[in-house]
Amino acid sequence: MTILSEKRTAPDADADPRVDVDHLEEVLLGRWADIRREARAFLLDPRLHRDESLAMPEHRERVLEQLRILAKEGDVLRAFPTALGGADDHGGSLARFEEVITADPSLQIKAGVQWGLFASAILHLGTESHHERFLPGAMSVDVPGAFAMTETGHGSDVASIGTTATYDPETEEFVIHTPFRAAWKDYLGNAALHGTAAVVFAQLITAAPGGTPVNHGVHAFYVPIRNPETGEFLPGVGGEDDGMKGGLNGIDNGRLWFDHVRVPRTDLLNRYGDVAPDGTYSSPIASPGRRFFTMLGTLVQGRVSLDGAAVNAAKIGLVTAITYGNQRRQFSGTGHDEVVLLDYAEHQRRLLPLLAQTYAAAFAHERLLQTFDAVFSGAKDTDEDRQDLETIAAALKPSSTWHALTTLQVCREACGGQGFMAENRLTGLRADMDVYATFEGDNTVLLQLVAKRLLADFAAEFKGADAGAMARYMAGRAADAALHRTPLARVVQTLADGGNVRRSVGHLRDTETQRELLTDRVETMVEELAQALRPAGKLSREAAADLFNEHQHALIEAARAHADLLLWEGFTAGLAQVRDEGTRRVLTWLRDLFGLTVIERNLAWYLIHGRLSAGRARSVTSYIERLLRRIRPHAQDLVDAFGLEQGHVRATIASGVEAERQEEARAHYRRLRASGDMAVPEKSLGARG
Amino acid sequence: MTILSEKRTAPDADADPRVDVDHLEEVLLGRWADIRREARAFLLDPRLHRDESLAMPEHRERVLEQLRILAKEGDVLRAFPTALGGADDHGGSLARFEEVITADPSLQIKAGVQWGLFASAILHLGTESHHERFLPGAMSVDVPGAFAMTETGHGSDVASIGTTATYDPETEEFVIHTPFRAAWKDYLGNAALHGTAAVVFAQLITAAPGGTPVNHGVHAFYVPIRNPETGEFLPGVGGEDDGMKGGLNGIDNGRLWFDHVRVPRTDLLNRYGDVAPDGTYSSPIASPGRRFFTMLGTLVQGRVSLDGAAVNAAKIGLVTAITYGNQRRQFSGTGHDEVVLLDYAEHQRRLLPLLAQTYAAAFAHERLLQTFDAVFSGAKDTDEDRQDLETIAAALKPSSTWHALTTLQVCREACGGQGFMAENRLTGLRADMDVYATFEGDNTVLLQLVAKRLLADFAAEFKGADAGAMARYMAGRAADAALHRTPLARVVQTLADGGNVRRSVGHLRDTETQRELLTDRVETMVEELAQALRPAGKLSREAAADLFNEHQHALIEAARAHADLLLWEGFTAGLAQVRDEGTRRVLTWLRDLFGLTVIERNLAWYLIHGRLSAGRARSVTSYIERLLRRIRPHAQDLVDAFGLEQGHVRATIASGVEAERQEEARAHYRRLRASGDMAVPEKSLGARG
Repeated sequence: MTILSEKRTAPDADADPRVDVDHLEEVLLGRWADIRREARAFLLDPRLHRDESLAMPEHRERVLEQLRILAKEGDVLRAFPTALGGADDHGGSLARFEEVITADPSLQIKAGVQWGLFASAILHLGTESHHERFLPGAMSVDVPGAFAMTETGHGSDVASIGTTATYDPETEEFVIHTPFRAAWKDYLGNAALHGTAAVVFAQLITAAPGGTPVNHGVHAFYVPIRNPETGEFLPGVGGEDDGMKGGLNGIDNGRLWFDHVRVPRTDLLNRYGDVAPDGTYSSPIASPGRRFFTMLGTLVQGRVSLDGAAVNAAKIGLVTAITYGNQRRQFSGTGHDEVVLLDYAEHQRRLLPLLAQTYAAAFAHERLLQTFDAVFSGAKDTDEDRQDLETIAAALKPSSTWHALTTLQVCREACGGQGFMAENRLTGLRADMDVYATFEGDNTVLLQLVAKRLLADFAAEFKGADAGAMARYMAGRAADAALHRTPLARVVQTLADGGNVRRSVGHLRDTETQRELLTDRVETMVEELAQALRPAGKLSREAAADLFNEHQHALIEAARAHADLLLWEGFTAGLAQVRDEGTRRVLTWLRDLFGLTVIERNLAWYLIHGRLSAGRARSVTSYIERLLRRIRPHAQDLVDAFGLEQGHVRATIASGVEAERQEEARAHYRRLRASGDMAVPEKSLGARG
Repeated sequence: MTILSEKRTAPDADADPRVDVDHLEEVLLGRWADIRREARAFLLDPRLHRDESLAMPEHRERVLEQLRILAKEGDVLRAFPTALGGADDHGGSLARFEEVITADPSLQIKAGVQWGLFASAILHLGTESHHERFLPGAMSVDVPGAFAMTETGHGSDVASIGTTATYDPETEEFVIHTPFRAAWKDYLGNAALHGTAAVVFAQLITAAPGGTPVNHGVHAFYVPIRNPETGEFLPGVGGEDDGMKGGLNGIDNGRLWFDHVRVPRTDLLNRYGDVAPDGTYSSPIASPGRRFFTMLGTLVQGRVSLDGAAVNAAKIGLVTAITYGNQRRQFSGTGHDEVVLLDYAEHQRRLLPLLAQTYAAAFAHERLLQTFDAVFSGAKDTDEDRQDLETIAAALKPSSTWHALTTLQVCREACGGQGFMAENRLTGLRADMDVYATFEGDNTVLLQLVAKRLLADFAAEFKGADAGAMARYMAGRAADAALHRTPLARVVQTLADGGNVRRSVGHLRDTETQRELLTDRVETMVEELAQALRPAGKLSREAAADLFNEHQHALIEAARAHADLLLWEGFTAGLAQVRDEGTRRVLTWLRDLFGLTVIERNLAWYLIHGRLSAGRARSVTSYIERLLRRIRPHAQDLVDAFGLEQGHVRATIASGVEAERQEEARAHYRRLRASGDMAVPEKSLGARG
């Protein structure tokens, strides 16, 4: 009813819709719009910007300086308790942090190390005494700190790290020790130069009086590492500079080792596990497994914010490539003018699906951030809420970080030689984003976690039901699947469409059809996996591991499908917030483009599983091509709605300079033609002669 | 018969084949094995290696110095005429040049600018006087030179450049002029600093006595640009440094402009077009279009050698990632040891298809290089031979340069944090290779050229035949296609396979089946395009351009399909040269993996077009998984056969250091367990208590 009356007031919106850029920008900014806007205004400050000309040592010093500016002027403490000078604002804090990437990803990650990891570990893993003693220095950057978790020999498998912290009841100290080279802490920001302390993760070993030494698993310790005056390592501590990296060279990543370094018993960050003076271990969480995951749980904020930062990096790339693609001309058109790049169908094919996915990722990220805020503020903080949060973050972080890499690369190529110039920032941003795919949880490892969760949820549906229920369900699905798989289902679709492409497209543009296709794929993949992995319970550990390994690729594909669904649902929910009719129409095309691109990418699956007939499968591609033509006139509006200024994007070719050059060249030829001084092409002469 | 007797002498080869690494290396080295081996030995010289620690200015100076070393000791003049100190060895020269990438891609490209573009243009576009006057300096690098073709406003569309060379009969000079900013020459190696001369491409404008000025199209001129003593620009010449780039920062790319710079009439490189003192233009090639493409034809050697260099870059990445993946352990296995990365199915899925494609690309490149040699040596140098060469190069260069980028990225991610360290070279190589996708012919533009050639060939088949022939052919194909498209064809396949996966796989592993599937796809796509574009002839220029644009994506896909087929045929031809039975067996699996991966990537196409039943389509993926398991034990042999030494790869993690670290850690735990000092895991305690 409302929609109808809106249509009446804007009768042309249907035929020739306009994007309300300001409104769309507001929708995209989401719940923390004010904080994001304020952060963006602050980040226009050139003191905070990457200077591409700096070599690594100067870049590192500049970023440290910028970190101190952030500490003083950057409102970086929102996530900390009000009592400690913060604002207890978890979502807002990450929203702000995600924007920092426009200044320099090195600054973003250095800030992440300082406040998101080092200070945050003190806050979340420590207790009152630690907060009093260590937080002020960490928050103010008086104590630049390293987060010493990863080791050369153990990245994503934190539970297996080799560093030990053995309790000595004689002196009431822990002895932190690195037993071999692979147990050196590695890739730690602040470790090569600036860090004077570290939160060190180690296997806590202690014995109750008279008992056997027990390894209580990974715990965190506050360990001073350098003399803040001289910058020299403290006795027993050593390390190495990681040196040049593929990107993020504003951060002084390095390695650390410990040779029987003693720290007081009270410097164990003891919220989830403590050791009494006599060596007795205690923990509020009985299960060592659950304890470990609880301690690591605070890491989720890293993944959440990387997701948001990656989306922002993709936005910068698209603003640059689409603005340039709208100005740059190449190869003759039909008149005197050359064709604008974005009018080429292939240019649209390369860029616009990435634009659609960026919107999907932005909306999905906003939902993730709200979930994160609900958990961390305590508003919705059950075990299940935390697990949901971790699963969504584990699904979206791989998706968005890979998407940013793809997008920046395609944008760089779409800008040709200009894209390769550092001044246009695409290559530098891509180089910096590269490691986002493997740090804070390797993308492939995270996707496996997601798949395991999907399988567990699937199994849980049948928990408590009688033993036959799952078997009956499976048998039902199998019959269902058999129907899908026969040519019959396809024939039915073909009959329904009557060979009519329009009818087939009408089907595909339907929101519920897209949802069904995307959801069905995840569910079917999970069911097939559950079925395939069912024998594992009865097998030897070795055979079960082999069976699991055999299906590892399918597990990861299922997790990817789940992430695609989350993005699509996020986009669809975002769409519902758009009040302007024209904007909603264009954005619906963009959402359809995203959905259909995902379906096209997995088209073989839909065909093999009988979900789409060959006829409908063909119309997926033709509908995508129709959508590209429809969206093309709105491409500039759609990137403008990201709300990024030239001071954020800072790509010379996105500044309008290309349009000026093109105009100057065209004016030159217009003048020549008008004056009659233009040399005659030999070709035309030949035609006459 | 031979195969049978070989089988008898090596009875186990079938069940448990071994790769004869030396033999395979020899096959891969190809026709110019000796030259490649000698080049590789020479390139072990550390003076020639990239030093990652150097900032741009020092890197540029180092590469110039290396260029002079190459000139003196590097046997870089093989392609030049024997009379001028060369060896008239075109294929050998490129083979040598392709290997230089192991030292530093910047050095490769700087050498390419000096000898492959600047000196080569003098050789191929100039005549005797130019050879005498300009070649010695260009060959010896006494005159570092720029190849001033590309302009800021015109990249791949060379025909539209704005720089003019207007003949002045009064002084018998050409006036080289840059009319507007977009006509500045751009991205030119040697232009920012080192170049003292340039071959400048400009629109040649002249008038026969009393005639109208005529633009004879793009021609090349030899133009001094800097005072070699002072390094200052000569009067009328100006320019800019391109500054930092996304990679290749050892090259001083820059911009040049000309303000009415006068050069003698005789400095026009006049092989394909000349101007008499009175201004009369003459050319051995009457058609301006053909003349232009003939002049640009020598550029093909750039594309050929970039194809080879890109394959070499992919090899370096794979040696690193597969060696590391064979040593690195992560996450618990079934015993005490952790699992070697390459034993994970997903790790195999990520790396081994790239290995297969690298083999395919290496073999296909060898064929391309032989074709190139035949054309440039004059052995097979008809117009058609040249066109074939250009088409193959235009198909393979996009394929291999994109493949190198993908491979280096996947390898970097497969090595986790180590992959991001500059010392392991994956990120630096990738950054350097990035621009290979858009320079020397933008990949997307090249693929369109390929597609146009495929269409032209298709049309030519019907040239001369009566008007009805094509229509009848098309009708026949349509009936054929209709058969393919009905469920009937699929049902027939299903019946043939009897639902038997083994039979279905047996079908797919057959060489002829793979060839048919890959060939059929190219042919069908081209036919469909020919059909769809047929109306263009009857349309207005504008409508025809729109029609063409509508099918641009399909054109590019057809060209990609053609490139895949070329790779597969190259691999299959390479396979035929393998004499050792075990090696051939493993390599056949690898060829099958390549073929099946291509088919899997386009599985939806095969399903929609009725070429594969759903059952066979499913078995594509299961056969790929089986091949991965079979190839996995040979992965190290297969990268060892690339014949690259640590002095070429120079990645710390490929040096064996990871195996040492792993062994040290495992020994530590073995000792602890043996001594009884190992702390008991809390978990096991809980289980007991």
